[in-house]
Amino acid sequence: MRALFLASILSMVIAFTSVEALAVGTTSSDSSDCIECHQDFTPGIVVEWERSLHSQRTPKRAREVADELERRISAESTPEETEKFVVGCAECHLLNPEKHEDTFEHNGFQVHVVVTPDDCAVCHPVERDQYAENLMANAYHNLMSNPLYKDMANAINGTRVHSDGDITIKEPSDLTEADSCLMCHGTIVTVDGMETKNTLMGEMDFPKLIGWPNQGVGRINPDGSKGACTACHTRHEFSIAMARKPETCGQCHKGPDVPAYSVYKVSKHGNLYSSASSKWDFEAVPWKLGEDFTAPTCASCHISLLTFSGEVIAERTHRMNDRLSWRIFGLPYAHARPISPDTTIIKNKAGLPLPTELSGEPVSEYLLSDEEMAQSRETIQTICLACHSTQWKDGFFTKLDSTIEVTNEITKAATALVAQAWEKGYANGPATGGSPFDEAIEMKWVKSWLFYANSTRFAAAMGGADYGVFQNGRFQLSETIEEMKDWLKIMEMMTPPSDEK
Amino acid sequence: MRALFLASILSMVIAFTSVEALAVGTTSSDSSDCIECHQDFTPGIVVEWERSLHSQRTPKRAREVADELERRISAESTPEETEKFVVGCAECHLLNPEKHEDTFEHNGFQVHVVVTPDDCAVCHPVERDQYAENLMANAYHNLMSNPLYKDMANAINGTRVHSDGDITIKEPSDLTEADSCLMCHGTIVTVDGMETKNTLMGEMDFPKLIGWPNQGVGRINPDGSKGACTACHTRHEFSIAMARKPETCGQCHKGPDVPAYSVYKVSKHGNLYSSASSKWDFEAVPWKLGEDFTAPTCASCHISLLTFSGEVIAERTHRMNDRLSWRIFGLPYAHARPISPDTTIIKNKAGLPLPTELSGEPVSEYLLSDEEMAQSRETIQTICLACHSTQWKDGFFTKLDSTIEVTNEITKAATALVAQAWEKGYANGPATGGSPFDEAIEMKWVKSWLFYANSTRFAAAMGGADYGVFQNGRFQLSETIEEMKDWLKIMEMMTPPSDEK
Amino acid sequence: MRALFLASILSMVIAFTSVEALAVGTTSSDSSDCIECHQDFTPGIVVEWERSLHSQRTPKRAREVADELERRISAESTPEETEKFVVGCAECHLLNPEKHEDTFEHNGFQVHVVVTPDDCAVCHPVERDQYAENLMANAYHNLMSNPLYKDMANAINGTRVHSDGDITIKEPSDLTEADSCLMCHGTIVTVDGMETKNTLMGEMDFPKLIGWPNQGVGRINPDGSKGACTACHTRHEFSIAMARKPETCGQCHKGPDVPAYSVYKVSKHGNLYSSASSKWDFEAVPWKLGEDFTAPTCASCHISLLTFSGEVIAERTHRMNDRLSWRIFGLPYAHARPISPDTTIIKNKAGLPLPTELSGEPVSEYLLSDEEMAQSRETIQTICLACHSTQWKDGFFTKLDSTIEVTNEITKAATALVAQAWEKGYANGPATGGSPFDEAIEMKWVKSWLFYANSTRFAAAMGGADYGVFQNGRFQLSETIEEMKDWLKIMEMMTPPSDEK
Repeated sequence: MRALFLASILSMVIAFTSVEALAVGTTSSDSSDCIECHQDFTPGIVVEWERSLHSQRTPKRAREVADELERRISAESTPEETEKFVVGCAECHLLNPEKHEDTFEHNGFQVHVVVTPDDCAVCHPVERDQYAENLMANAYHNLMSNPLYKDMANAINGTRVHSDGDITIKEPSDLTEADSCLMCHGTIVTVDGMETKNTLMGEMDFPKLIGWPNQGVGRINPDGSKGACTACHTRHEFSIAMARKPETCGQCHKGPDVPAYSVYKVSKHGNLYSSASSKWDFEAVPWKLGEDFTAPTCASCHISLLTFSGEVIAERTHRMNDRLSWRIFGLPYAHARPISPDTTIIKNKAGLPLPTELSGEPVSEYLLSDEEMAQSRETIQTICLACHSTQWKDGFFTKLDSTIEVTNEITKAATALVAQAWEKGYANGPATGGSPFDEAIEMKWVKSWLFYANSTRFAAAMGGADYGVFQNGRFQLSETIEEMKDWLKIMEMMTPPSDEK
Repeated sequence: MRALFLASILSMVIAFTSVEALAVGTTSSDSSDCIECHQDFTPGIVVEWERSLHSQRTPKRAREVADELERRISAESTPEETEKFVVGCAECHLLNPEKHEDTFEHNGFQVHVVVTPDDCAVCHPVERDQYAENLMANAYHNLMSNPLYKDMANAINGTRVHSDGDITIKEPSDLTEADSCLMCHGTIVTVDGMETKNTLMGEMDFPKLIGWPNQGVGRINPDGSKGACTACHTRHEFSIAMARKPETCGQCHKGPDVPAYSVYKVSKHGNLYSSASSKWDFEAVPWKLGEDFTAPTCASCHISLLTFSGEVIAERTHRMNDRLSWRIFGLPYAHARPISPDTTIIKNKAGLPLPTELSGEPVSEYLLSDEEMAQSRETIQTICLACHSTQWKDGFFTKLDSTIEVTNEITKAATALVAQAWEKGYANGPATGGSPFDEAIEMKWVKSWLFYANSTRFAAAMGGADYGVFQNGRFQLSETIEEMKDWLKIMEMMTPPSDEK
Repeated sequence: MRALFLASILSMVIAFTSVEALAVGTTSSDSSDCIECHQDFTPGIVVEWERSLHSQRTPKRAREVADELERRISAESTPEETEKFVVGCAECHLLNPEKHEDTFEHNGFQVHVVVTPDDCAVCHPVERDQYAENLMANAYHNLMSNPLYKDMANAINGTRVHSDGDITIKEPSDLTEADSCLMCHGTIVTVDGMETKNTLMGEMDFPKLIGWPNQGVGRINPDGSKGACTACHTRHEFSIAMARKPETCGQCHKGPDVPAYSVYKVSKHGNLYSSASSKWDFEAVPWKLGEDFTAPTCASCHISLLTFSGEVIAERTHRMNDRLSWRIFGLPYAHARPISPDTTIIKNKAGLPLPTELSGEPVSEYLLSDEEMAQSRETIQTICLACHSTQWKDGFFTKLDSTIEVTNEITKAATALVAQAWEKGYANGPATGGSPFDEAIEMKWVKSWLFYANSTRFAAAMGGADYGVFQNGRFQLSETIEEMKDWLKIMEMMTPPSDEK
């Protein structure tokens, strides 16, 4: 009996402690109205929200956290009406109705479906502003408004159709684009009038959303803003823990083109994460090295506010580029990081929207100078130095720089081979009005840099051995060039020497 | 001292609580006899069993659970002799001895090694019956008794031998088949007399089992039943938790042909699983949305009994097909789900055992009608709607339908190219007595639909971005068609035009 | 109030308990000096060390553990100066200064950066000795001193450069080698004088280390020893738990050449690990089957000391080869395990440094005899038998043996095809002074055995279905041979028949 009494007391203590720590606000009457129906009709999201900090703290209370490093809100003030209530449905989905093309009348409320960075900015303006300067916020635009990249997307996503013994390529539909590149890059979400839906509550009217659903990082929203905070802070828990876990980045950064997560998993850091992270605290703000975690995730190096013994090791940033000097994701060559997150402004000497010439020479005016690169590098290296000696860090980066240089050199060789195919008329290249991306030999060339040179560099950047050798690394890079050479030889042997091209 | 006293009291309370919850039966004397030896000779499985619910509850007690939703047993009554005892070794391995070809005398007992769905059906008849109607129960038969699929398996698993400067293909041996396709599809387990084995207890006689060990989902058992419950509910814990975790499905559904698990891992749902599931309860029956878990695993959508606030969201089913409208796994085209789980009955107009014509046209009589598809779709969409709006759900499925249509169209182009190779005599196709699957150009064709079109559809069905683009998706699909075209061009250029084919 | 009192008492009890169990020594004054600075400059590693057993126990206390099976130290005595203090920075980094080429003066201490197996052997001599006889300790030498393997590494890692319309291959630089093969195999770490570094403490002098950083398993250290204990027991926690988790092996054993970890993940054992290991105890010594874990990880079968009910199931070994009969990693053929871990001593009849002839015939004198194979097999099978019947085990190994035989037969066919290419002059092989590894057709041949035959065997050895079929298995193996055949046919058709080769 006594034992049971003690145990129940103990659980009360635990319950009490967490209540005290978290529950400090009430749900607004508007949000309560939403919940009243939605806990029956979409219970999953209500439950997730209940687990979130949003359901437990008012913005006012969040601002009052004394230690600025511990504060989870960057607004210095928030609208009066949000002060009394926790952040519920209404606090986000009713914001800025006039700016939202997707606003509609829903049971007496002017609701919008697509909550955007500009909505989140009521409480998190610094993050919104930083993110707007992030390369990822421009992911839609940088892909779809760059004629060369768009051409490559069409070559990949276009529907190959057979007619009269030949293959032709139909342009990809909007749905195909939304289901492929734009799943990560983000769609344009627009409204095409209203439509009536048969719902669990009977017939209801909703705006007909085009490009929806989508959580891509560069989504163009119905209020004109760019990005989707939910890409990393998933609805409706909006968890910082989730965003700090590498699986979140892995949603988009795993494939052969950007194998960051895959490489991380086989790196020593990833090994520590896999083996030890069940004991880490992914919720703590600031993220205290040693106390909360002992090895970096993606977020540690690229985003998070890190401290040790109360000292700041790295400032939080949602403009992730800040901590990078190179852009190792080569298109086709790795190059110094572009100055502007809008890369559509870049033009090389040949007039192409590329950050390098086809020879690999960087288009310097749009890219970080050596001094700026050194500065960015220092930012990220400060984090390395929390666990590694200067010597270790220098040795590591020397290897990385060498691998960038060597893989760029190999990309130059691959580019020369595809150019040879174009010149000799074995493939229909840009000079003869063709796409440089849609024939077999051209796709081999694409793989050489997009998959294999990139993978080799990601492996060098994080210590992911086989991604630089047998797993889409140097083996495949060398093999692809040999195959291109082999194919050119076959073409040459089949072509009568007198034939002029 | 006092503190230590309290701590020990506390651990007693915890121990007591779990004892009370679980231990409600005794082990039969037969099972105790088994355990007496086997705890020395195969301790691992004894320990696993001790962790199982089977070792802790009698079937009677399991039936007495008042709330039907919480009941883990579907038999309305169980044989009298099983009522007093928990489910131990003897309760399964001694069942139905006369039906089991593998029954043998073992230390005074008529034991069989291979426990089967029909054995499990003593307590779980509903699950056995449902599973028997599941496509997976027919996985052996549907592969090995379909001459076309068997031909493809032979083309892949056959041993290529070099003699006289040429390559010939030897048929795969039974062991090769058991080690490849049948590892997942299931073997036929038969008895070939008795044999003497040198065991840790000295020489003993056992039935010589052919096709053993195997835990494939469509295993043909020595009692004539189909399937292996242990494929998902692994021996000897038979855990519901394990079956609900996606890694269990991932054993067989991960490769390029059926990348369901791989796609799930990079989907938003998979991201939630990776980031948050350490706090979920995978043991609870029913599985309560929000309370027990917050994002779906494979089981949530395809199998499990789901509730919210005591209301059933989805009924449990072991006939997983029920929740599917399409069969997105194309052979070679995606098509409406077959009506019968036995797909060997299907014949298309050309007389081939395929659910579509080679042109992609469905063989409607064997497939769900549009109305039936709509009904199946509604079943699975009810689960979506627990977290997503009607609008979201509709947008998602519109994209999926479009991707099914477009990938089928591309498969048609690929099929036209391989047909061209056959017609012109560049490859030895069915019309000239060859296998359609065993030459280089034919294997390219196979990859175009089996790997790349399938992967693209799985990515669309679960939101797994790169599996629809660069990770065995549209890039590889387009590339493969370009390579087929390229090869045909080479063949054509090398063939004197006057040469008649 | 009373509840709070109880809770605080309770946490004291917990704290006290763990203090009693672990904290039994003090940090030496030398190590304290290190920590004084390094907790500011590299706090991460200090924190990791604080979590380690090294920071909590003196070697003396570790030796005094009464039950030999529980002891974590193999030295029968340790130097007097280490007896009073826990194992801190100084206890390792100041050891054997005269033997360490990398020793330098650092704030009054003779420090070396690279701690080696010979340093660790002060407390762990048995492990050092066993590991020195492990194939992995020779990973550098076996690759770089075998002219044939080195030639293959050069063919893969060499920089392909385009000049005058042709591709030439530049030898890989030391940095490229360190960033590719040697990341896992280990570099040679040497000292090239001293250099001044700009550190957080201002300018300081350090030895200039070449081949650093590196944690490869066969690293050649500045004291002449081989290996890096930190490859698996990561700095500075040196955790046994980490080494027992499969992700640690997965750092190097994941790619298409050695997909051990990948295969494990989709095996039934891996499924159990993924689903159930959150409840296992990875710290316990010895590792008690059933009590501490219920399914094997890599370490269980290949390394760890396993017990059941106090009985030893398997002795700990760091000479992992001991538990293996075959070397299923074929180069190019799978073969009986080599007797010596130094495989550079092997020569076949053709004078090549290979364990088999090019026809597949084993070079028996350097390999285990059938009796020795049987003995090694028995060692590992004892572990299988803890959970599986003799029958199951025999069935499993019969399948594995068959798959080894069949894949070797296929490798023979692939080898005959590449030989044909060399003979007919379609490729420049060894007989005509070329590398056998650097042309497109040769790399296809390499993939046939290095990726596909190997993957198929790993899948057979662990039950990893698709890695033996569609995921780099029999499909790709058959396809590659068909592609080689196809290419030879094209070459033949393009070569005028009168032309003599």
